[in-house]
Formats: sequence, C-alpha cells, structure tokens
Amino acid sequence: MLINQKNPHGGDIYTNKVEYDFSSNLNPEGMPPQVKKAITTSVDEYCRYPDAYCSQLRKNISDLEMIPSANIICGNGAAELIFSYAYSLDRDKPALIVSPTFCEYENALHAAGIEAKHLILSEKNGFRLTAEDIPEDLSSFSAVFICSPNNPTGITVEPDIINMICDTGIRVFADFCFLDLSDSPQKYSLPYLTKKYPNLTVLKAFTKNYAMAGIRLGYAMCSDTRFLETMSQKTQCWNVSAVAQLAGIAALDCQKWLDDSVKTLKEERNRVFQTLTSYGVRVFKGEANYLLLYSEINLKDLLLKKGILIRDCSNYTGLKKGYFRIAIKKKAENDVLLSALKEVIS
Amino acid sequence: MLINQKNPHGGDIYTNKVEYDFSSNLNPEGMPPQVKKAITTSVDEYCRYPDAYCSQLRKNISDLEMIPSANIICGNGAAELIFSYAYSLDRDKPALIVSPTFCEYENALHAAGIEAKHLILSEKNGFRLTAEDIPEDLSSFSAVFICSPNNPTGITVEPDIINMICDTGIRVFADFCFLDLSDSPQKYSLPYLTKKYPNLTVLKAFTKNYAMAGIRLGYAMCSDTRFLETMSQKTQCWNVSAVAQLAGIAALDCQKWLDDSVKTLKEERNRVFQTLTSYGVRVFKGEANYLLLYSEINLKDLLLKKGILIRDCSNYTGLKKGYFRIAIKKKAENDVLLSALKEVIS
Repeated sequence: MLINQKNPHGGDIYTNKVEYDFSSNLNPEGMPPQVKKAITTSVDEYCRYPDAYCSQLRKNISDLEMIPSANIICGNGAAELIFSYAYSLDRDKPALIVSPTFCEYENALHAAGIEAKHLILSEKNGFRLTAEDIPEDLSSFSAVFICSPNNPTGITVEPDIINMICDTGIRVFADFCFLDLSDSPQKYSLPYLTKKYPNLTVLKAFTKNYAMAGIRLGYAMCSDTRFLETMSQKTQCWNVSAVAQLAGIAALDCQKWLDDSVKTLKEERNRVFQTLTSYGVRVFKGEANYLLLYSEINLKDLLLKKGILIRDCSNYTGLKKGYFRIAIKKKAENDVLLSALKEVIS
Repeated sequence: MLINQKNPHGGDIYTNKVEYDFSSNLNPEGMPPQVKKAITTSVDEYCRYPDAYCSQLRKNISDLEMIPSANIICGNGAAELIFSYAYSLDRDKPALIVSPTFCEYENALHAAGIEAKHLILSEKNGFRLTAEDIPEDLSSFSAVFICSPNNPTGITVEPDIINMICDTGIRVFADFCFLDLSDSPQKYSLPYLTKKYPNLTVLKAFTKNYAMAGIRLGYAMCSDTRFLETMSQKTQCWNVSAVAQLAGIAALDCQKWLDDSVKTLKEERNRVFQTLTSYGVRVFKGEANYLLLYSEINLKDLLLKKGILIRDCSNYTGLKKGYFRIAIKKKAENDVLLSALKEVIS
C-alpha cells in the first residue's frame, strides 16, 4: 500500500518490535507530571472546538520567549508549520536546504511544488556550517532552511552565521526545535534576532522539550505579521487541538523541570560520547539530546535483534550507509544501549 | 492583529461571553464516557510519536464503513483533509462549490491558489440541489464540492444527484460529516459509491458524531489510492495525534450510544422545528443536528445579551443578512433557546 511509505523517520515503534526506542529524540525524563494532569483533568472540555487563535497559549509563549504574541503562531506539531511555511513561499524559485538534515523540509517543499536544492555540509568540518559554505548570491532562492542543533548531527549553527545569511535579505527558516535541550541556547537572542530580521522565521516545538510527541504542538516566531498571517491561512482554522493547547500551557510552567532535565541530559550525553569514543566508534560532537555515529557494521539491524531501535540515517540527503543516530535517554537505558553496542561491534 | 481574522465559524466561545453555545453543531449528548476514559487512561502513551499510518484506527474505520483500509486516510479533524484535498487538485482549473456551504472549502482552495466558483442554490427550492442546477459541462472544473447534509441548511443531496455528477468523471468531494447524525444515512451506500467512483472522495468526522471537536479527528475515503497518497503527502507525517487515534478507536465502539443519541436528536429537532414554525419563524427543513432560520430581527446580538450564542450565517456566500443557524441540543437547553427566541421576536 502506497500510504505506508509516509514515515521515513525514527520513532516508528508501530511497525518494529521494540523494547528500547533510541530512534526518536525526546526529553528522556518523559512528559512532566503537570502536563499529564492538565490533559486528564480537562477531559470534559475536549468536546468543544479549540480556540482557533490559541490566545492563552500564545500569550504564555510570548511571556517566556519575550516575543510579542502577534509574532507567534502555533501548529499541530512543529512539522505542520514547516508545511505552512513551504506553502507560503514563492513557488517560482527553488529553496535551499542546509543538509544532511530533517527531511520534512524537503517533503514540505515537494508538497508545495517547490524545488529543493541542497547545500551539503562537509564531514571534514564535522558537519558544521561555515561562512565559506554560504553561496555568494542567494537571490535565486526563495528561502534557506537551517536546523540548529541540526538533526541528525547535533551540530549548531553559530549566531554570526545566521546573521550573515539573514543580512542578505533572503527568507530564513531556522528550526530551533532542539535548541532548549542543547548546551547553550542563550547564545541566540531570539527577541533580538526576530525583531532585527523580519525575513527570519524561528521554529520551536513542545515535542522534544516536554516529551509531548503524541500531543502535537509547535510554534513559529516571525516579526513579519503579514507573512505569519499567510502561513496561518495555509491550514484549517482549528489546527491546534484543545488537548495540545492545555498541555502546552501546563508545560510552559515547567521551566525548572526542563532546566534540571537538560542538566542530567548533558551529563549523560557526555558520558555516552566518551564511552563510545573509548570503544573506537566514530561519534560526532553533537550538542543536543542525540548523537550521530558512523560504523561499517549495520548497527540498526543488529540492535533491533536485541529489541533496541536506533535511527539508520542512510536516507538523509548528504549521508550514506553507515550513519546512525542514537537518542540520549536515562542512565539505565543508556547503559543497556552501550553494552549492546559494545557486544555488536566487538 | 491580522491573525485574529482566522475563525469565521461558530463555536467561538473564546471571544464571546456565552452560557449556551448553539453556534456549533455537535452531538448534544457530548463525548461518550468511553472516549473520555480512553483519553485519560492512555496519558502515559502521549510522549511517543503517533503512528504515522493510523493503522489500528483505519482498520477499525474500515470494519465500520466496510471500505478497505487502503482507501481511508485520517486527518487532524476533517478540516485538515479539506486542505489536503485542495492541495492535491489541478491548480490550473477553478473548482466548483455548491453554496451556501461550509467556507473551509473556499479557504482551502484559496490556500492552494485555486479559483473557487460557486453554484448558488436557490431558496425557492429550499436550498436543495436539483438535476437542473448542474451545469451541462463540468470539464472546465477540477472538482465539485458538495456537502450533505449541507451546512448550514441541513438539506441533503439525493444519491441520484451524486451519481449524476460522479458519472461526468469530474472529481467530487462529498462532505458527509453530518450524515451519521441525519435522518437517513443509509440512503447512501458508501462502499458501493466509493468503489464505483474512484473520482469520489467522501469526508467524515468524529467531531460531530462523538462531540470530539477539541480532539481533532476526521477521515476521507476514496478508492483512488494514488490520489489518497498524494493527499497524504500534502501534510506532515504525524498529522493525527496519539490522543485522537486512541479516542477515535474508543468512539468507534460506541455505535449503540450514537444510534440512541440520534433518535433523541431527531425528536428534539422536529420539536424545535414545529415550535419555531408555530412562532411564525421561517425555518428550513434540515435533516441534521441544526436548523437554518431567517429573521429580519438581529437574533444573534439579541440572544447574545442573554448569554446564548447562535451562528450568524450572513457571511456564507449565497446567503445574506437575516440567516441564522441554531444547533439542536438537549431538551432543557432547547427550551432555554426557544423561550429566549420567543421573547426576542415578540
């Protein structure tokens, strides 16, 4: 059945028999208890249509991000906003994707009938975007898609590189969905950046930070309100469920929970990185809640036999057979993965 | 703020101060208790990504509708599927909308850059689509949008009229979201119709039947699997939340609950119809869970002062000032509306 070709991502625990899912990149602490509570105690409200404007949720995001409500729109997961963005672009020009990266940018461009071109990052530079990589003339593109920390490499894009691209005036889509789980989110000032560059759209998700992947909630920020209005018109009016709005409002109250979880996560990531390096595995120095590895051995199939699902990254444009992404989870689970990996590679 | 122009529909209890919402058309019995239970008991599963293929849900819909799983796709509410459909059409031809009707068809066409033309039904025929209304040559259109029972009139389209349009070979979008709440859903055989006409796409929703508007779940059925695949590629891969999938599966087990609620609903609708007629109000003979009225008095504003929200239908293409839609709710609530209406019109 054709329809079964839709999900090329990690997290597909539905068609695989899996005990440990290291293929999707969520906060290892799981969903905050306050969010679960908000979802269950509000069940009587789900009969009603959701607020089409997500007014309360956008106000609370605005308070947290220090960006005006009018510069924020919410989506049915960040992924929906990638599609709304692509549908809002000029169809007559190709768009440029900094790759290897999340394939939904290309899928969305394809859906919108826009040609996708790739700027392939070099492994020699550790998959880092440098000033030299940026084409001198970007005017032939409708937009540039950047992901920081990048999925699946975990490598961030430096603020001066983002400024440099934004300064050209081209539309820039900066996917910061993993930013809050990374080492130094504060190196970007989003209020400053979005205000200075109306051509910049920043994407964020609740999915990763609060392990809310099944709920679907993301948001985009842009100071060009006409462009946001165009994006909003590319979807139905009730795209964000009442469940997602209430869960999101509860999640925004969990900042201390989030900070604590990021601290633990960072320690675990460093430990997993060092352990894998000590095993002789080639690991890239990612800054988020996952790591990219390279191995000649088919780690995915071998680990799956042990009930562990990792992400085979060979279908990313710019990568090839041998690249795998592992999520960083809690210590006990990471230990399971590490010892299974040790067994498989030896 | 531009973004606040997005919701022209009923159900906006967020910007109005409302005690009784007669503006949105949901099953008056509310959400079945089994659905609420499924939502709350599964809360620990919402951290994971939803099944991108909605496999279990589609299987259960398939069993109920007696249509193969491969001919079904699910959406984030039926409204999302209207947009996926519009994005899948040939952009070079206009589409025809049988109006007055739900404005999301036109919004979706607009989003997709497709011109919308309207076939305006005549009030003289009680807003019923007749064979004479159908243009002889439909080949200049990419698709025809039909809603049955129609929103906001409640009038159904006879099966032979649907056959007649499908026979021309044009793509037909038949929105049957209110069908299961209407008097004679069995007059259409959906397995027969969809099998006979691969150019037909039928839309249904969980929103109305099970009062799940805040959850967002709908589905489309079409035997042209390539077209369904195109539709599915017009959205992100995880468009249906885990909450919606579990709630939907639970709802499909509530067929007796649904049948009973429709019986009561029908009695109440007939009672409200007769009472309003006895007040001298012009009411149209709708067959669903709402009624269209005409009044020279601004019923909406006057009722809103009493905390009752009804739907002003003057912004429907093909209607004008003076048309209002009221939902049929439970007896006690309908009595509140009827006595308030009596007061206002006398």
